[in-house]
Amino acid sequence: MRTLQFLLIVFFFSFFSMAQIPSSLNLMPVPAKVQVGAGQLVVDQAFTAVSTGHRDDRLERGISRFLDQVSRQTGMTLNGQPADASNATLVIHAENAGRKVQELDEDESYALEITPSRATLTAATALGALYGLQTFLQLIEPTPAGFAVPVITIQDRPRFAWRGLLIDASRHFIPIEVLKRNLDGMAAVKMNVLHWHLSDDEGFRVESKRFPKLHELGSEGQYYTQAEIRDFVAYARDRGIRVVPEFDMPGHSRSWMAGYPELASVPGSYRAGRIADADTVMDPTRDGTYKFLDKFVGEMAALFPDAYFHIGGDEVNNKPWDSNPKIQEFIRAHGMKNNRDLQAYFNQRLQKIVQKHGKIMMGWDEVLHPDLPKTVLVESWRGQDSLAEAAKQGHLGLLSYGYYLDLMWPAARHYAVDPMAMTTTGGAAALTAEEKKRILGGEACMWSEFVTPETIDSRIWPRLAAIAERLWSPQEVRDNQSMYRRLEEVSWRLGWLGLNHESNYPLLLQRLAGSHDIGALRVLADVVEPTKDYTRTEVFPQPPVKSTPLNRMADAARPESTVTRQFSELVDGYFQSDYKDSAAEAQIRASLVNWRDNDVNLQPVLDRSFLLTEDKPLSTDLAALAAAGLEALDSIDKNQPLPDAWRAAQLAVVDRSMKPRANLLVMVAPPIQKLIAATAASH
Amino acid sequence: MRTLQFLLIVFFFSFFSMAQIPSSLNLMPVPAKVQVGAGQLVVDQAFTAVSTGHRDDRLERGISRFLDQVSRQTGMTLNGQPADASNATLVIHAENAGRKVQELDEDESYALEITPSRATLTAATALGALYGLQTFLQLIEPTPAGFAVPVITIQDRPRFAWRGLLIDASRHFIPIEVLKRNLDGMAAVKMNVLHWHLSDDEGFRVESKRFPKLHELGSEGQYYTQAEIRDFVAYARDRGIRVVPEFDMPGHSRSWMAGYPELASVPGSYRAGRIADADTVMDPTRDGTYKFLDKFVGEMAALFPDAYFHIGGDEVNNKPWDSNPKIQEFIRAHGMKNNRDLQAYFNQRLQKIVQKHGKIMMGWDEVLHPDLPKTVLVESWRGQDSLAEAAKQGHLGLLSYGYYLDLMWPAARHYAVDPMAMTTTGGAAALTAEEKKRILGGEACMWSEFVTPETIDSRIWPRLAAIAERLWSPQEVRDNQSMYRRLEEVSWRLGWLGLNHESNYPLLLQRLAGSHDIGALRVLADVVEPTKDYTRTEVFPQPPVKSTPLNRMADAARPESTVTRQFSELVDGYFQSDYKDSAAEAQIRASLVNWRDNDVNLQPVLDRSFLLTEDKPLSTDLAALAAAGLEALDSIDKNQPLPDAWRAAQLAVVDRSMKPRANLLVMVAPPIQKLIAATAASH
Repeated sequence: MRTLQFLLIVFFFSFFSMAQIPSSLNLMPVPAKVQVGAGQLVVDQAFTAVSTGHRDDRLERGISRFLDQVSRQTGMTLNGQPADASNATLVIHAENAGRKVQELDEDESYALEITPSRATLTAATALGALYGLQTFLQLIEPTPAGFAVPVITIQDRPRFAWRGLLIDASRHFIPIEVLKRNLDGMAAVKMNVLHWHLSDDEGFRVESKRFPKLHELGSEGQYYTQAEIRDFVAYARDRGIRVVPEFDMPGHSRSWMAGYPELASVPGSYRAGRIADADTVMDPTRDGTYKFLDKFVGEMAALFPDAYFHIGGDEVNNKPWDSNPKIQEFIRAHGMKNNRDLQAYFNQRLQKIVQKHGKIMMGWDEVLHPDLPKTVLVESWRGQDSLAEAAKQGHLGLLSYGYYLDLMWPAARHYAVDPMAMTTTGGAAALTAEEKKRILGGEACMWSEFVTPETIDSRIWPRLAAIAERLWSPQEVRDNQSMYRRLEEVSWRLGWLGLNHESNYPLLLQRLAGSHDIGALRVLADVVEPTKDYTRTEVFPQPPVKSTPLNRMADAARPESTVTRQFSELVDGYFQSDYKDSAAEAQIRASLVNWRDNDVNLQPVLDRSFLLTEDKPLSTDLAALAAAGLEALDSIDKNQPLPDAWRAAQLAVVDRSMKPRANLLVMVAPPIQKLIAATAASH
Repeated sequence: MRTLQFLLIVFFFSFFSMAQIPSSLNLMPVPAKVQVGAGQLVVDQAFTAVSTGHRDDRLERGISRFLDQVSRQTGMTLNGQPADASNATLVIHAENAGRKVQELDEDESYALEITPSRATLTAATALGALYGLQTFLQLIEPTPAGFAVPVITIQDRPRFAWRGLLIDASRHFIPIEVLKRNLDGMAAVKMNVLHWHLSDDEGFRVESKRFPKLHELGSEGQYYTQAEIRDFVAYARDRGIRVVPEFDMPGHSRSWMAGYPELASVPGSYRAGRIADADTVMDPTRDGTYKFLDKFVGEMAALFPDAYFHIGGDEVNNKPWDSNPKIQEFIRAHGMKNNRDLQAYFNQRLQKIVQKHGKIMMGWDEVLHPDLPKTVLVESWRGQDSLAEAAKQGHLGLLSYGYYLDLMWPAARHYAVDPMAMTTTGGAAALTAEEKKRILGGEACMWSEFVTPETIDSRIWPRLAAIAERLWSPQEVRDNQSMYRRLEEVSWRLGWLGLNHESNYPLLLQRLAGSHDIGALRVLADVVEPTKDYTRTEVFPQPPVKSTPLNRMADAARPESTVTRQFSELVDGYFQSDYKDSAAEAQIRASLVNWRDNDVNLQPVLDRSFLLTEDKPLSTDLAALAAAGLEALDSIDKNQPLPDAWRAAQLAVVDRSMKPRANLLVMVAPPIQKLIAATAASH
């Protein structure tokens, strides 16, 4: 208490530009404006929160979840005495409840003011208040005087109105409870749209009462009932998250044909599943197709309250259209030039149907065509230029390019992608102010060819938080070091929401080893990453065989190796110190010794389990890389350059390590390569 | 496939006595009879299981859960083709369904026969088949040729019919979902009784429709509804687990008096909660008490289908009876000698009520009295002699003494406690064959003064598996080394059931540190254990203040430190090798260096968080102990004894380390003490 008073006496404000959030704060995304004061507000068992504004059920439930979360984070049961605004620790005031169905243009801003005696959260809408509560949760830290939040003033609002995550529930079905914990995670980092990819070649995942064969024959029994969907949409709304459904058409629609083969461009019988080079495409020339879609869209439009309705429209395979003379004849008869024009025709008719049922159509960037109605929102996955092009043509746009989580990129690479960036060929930065306004934000995409309910959390988190920050925080917030520091802090705290991206890692390694003893296995697993982009080599099983097991090291390994990142930073620091930082050198040496000596312990483990035999050369090469790194360090230390032949031999191992094997890359190869390269010249 | 054929050619059987299970098997509890063959049966995505016996819904649901669990353990989706007995991988045959309400004397035996081409599980009842499925799950391992179970023949049945776990839901309320995952864990190690301690001074946890003020005023809103209880009992029955409710009376009943003060021996107004030295006891002299209990027991007897009804009966405080002249007058008027006789009178009347409602009464060993009807089952928590005494007097009996999980004993100590053991003063071993039959088994007890929903898994698991083995496996199974090896393997696999005793540990440490970086903190946390027996020093809060937070290192630390146990074994091995095992010495040295050097990194972390400041002296002492150990190692190495004064100084640190501070013990002190002691004489 004396400490607090003392701090009050020396009370001061520190201001900082948005690009530099103080390292004492673990906020992510970084708020628009922050002033840090001195002192703190203790959060103990007497903590209370009360709302004084517009009476709103959603906010009350949000406050109740917030209090539960305070309790979970701190391990304290709150006394929960009745409190009113005059004595509550946190007073929350929202002017109004927000719209019944959450909309794109709602005011999401909030202000949070914390003094040593109380905290005040104000917002125009309940939505803004919910964001403010998330900020408060991120501010709670253990201090020498108890759990506390710092004295601070925050004025915050998002840069973009659309901050989404796509989850593909078709390629692998993702159960509702897994989706729900991910909604909780999204809410924690202030994302506001779940884009639910509900149908694709591999599975149709929604119960349809109008066309029951869609889910009955198109899902292998794995689909969401309409009751589950209603409950899920309400769960999302409670957390300030809109749910936008996607039904991909006319391509990526094989699963529909299992029950309704008459939709297909080529007659036949179909089963859901991925068939290499044999995509299935709807027939846009038949009136029956549109009659079907009218009823179907009508049913789904009633089920999903959001204003937007995503029709996919990507990657339409030409083959089925080319191979059907009737369809080619239709193209000629209607004065179209090609299949592209035919898809535009399909989109125009579909747009009328979507609009008739009260929704705004959106689609992937292939839908862009001079004939496309301007009301259609275009989501760009192929590049930043196509986003700019859509905006130029008058469409609202979203960026997904650069935010594909299944590509296994490091967080920093996603973080660097800005929807408004200048590209070599233009990009959104070159647009007029009017055109720029059409760019609403972006969406991270979790395509699920290679994720299962048990691995999906580790593919989404923590990297999604970096994308969330890109879409919420001011454009100038882009310091990687700060981002990674905060990302690590956000990451473990997401564990309180039940996300298992951290907690499941040892269990997956134990399965691989068939043993509790994963010491040596973890040394290897910690320095590898799943192969990047679309280089994974599994053969997709043919229907009706269920999925290829995703239970290898490539599934357990994290998309981004923290151990490697830190080792790289150490090596870079050592070079920058002109090889004089002996503490860094000692740490580098210790890591290298650990990696070199690990192989002899690990090989017997890899021999015992069929899941691991494919990883044997990786372990051998890690040892070889580490041995080379140690030789290089000695060479640098003694200023005794090594011969070119030695380097050439080592670089062969480096090359091999950075090529996918067992769908993995040995990520310490590049920093070790730097050590090897440094043995060439004296220094 | 070739490997399999080769193995078949050299097919042989190895037999082993029950005391020695092969180290290739991770079965726990050890089955009654095992013959291991050569070769294996592959478990791949084509795996199927079919039942051929008596049609039984419970078994079908059990098989469905089993298949889900195969999938979860292996990370493989099973194809799930329809299968019949002629082509199923595993054929399950149960003669009958077992009783509608599970009973004590049901046949729990099963036989499992695995050949390289198929597996057959046979059992008298569905109950036995469920146990056999658990055994099959424990046999699945990754091998060089895929997931597989070994060729094996098992004939198994439990040694004791009553293998229970008590969970105290009164001191801290334990939500249903936490209980359910613990039921799954119990089923995995073949336990068959959940003893649900539902009322105590601190809380009354069951909805009563007859006496709603019991839960309304006695639970702070934390209770189970009757619908939840029915669902929970069905969930347990599906897993072969009986649910025995306990309503503790006439003592430990303060929470009842919150709503019904007329039950109390001393007039007054009451609130649920622990009041030091002021236990509240029912008034056994009023007829109204029995009228109340008649209605209450009637309601609960209908809610809980099990044949047994636990009335507590332990630790009745004399004060309330002594202080009420009317009660003392009643004792005299009825020719009783003392309060003990009054409790016996209460028990006799209560037994009639319990019996009238169709139940068999059971109570803690204080209920034992010459007047107690012989039908009452006695559960002994005070010692093995009182169990033997109850059996001698004609009562059925259960042992809980020695199985109290809240005492934080190592698994080996619980494992050594046998209900049938010889004690210095007799024990069950001295009973006649007839009397011995009355001892039905035992129950582990998870009293919840110091556990919360987030820590309870780590207090129950993995140690409960060792007690489960004591109660299931043949008496001669008692090798600690084998037990610990298998315990570690069982432990991580329990993670597939959602038990978080392993996965939650890093998260709890991160909360303590307020940081993702717990490297140094974990070094300390790994070598401490919560203080033993009832030496924990928190002051219980007074009502209505909610619980003292249990969020310190003493709550995160495991009851038994594996690191310490392994270090102790190393030191013992080093001594047994006559100080010649240089590999052991190197490992000992590496651990000591790690502990010695950790303190300087850890102190700043401990300074930052009020949750950790109390642990500062422990870290300092760990460093001092490690430094002393290193000096001792050098002395031993060089055969240069150290002076008595040096040893005396070091032993002061050892003494301090083994006294509770921050409710923790530094468990590496004893093995380091051995090193210190060895510096005295030359060797």
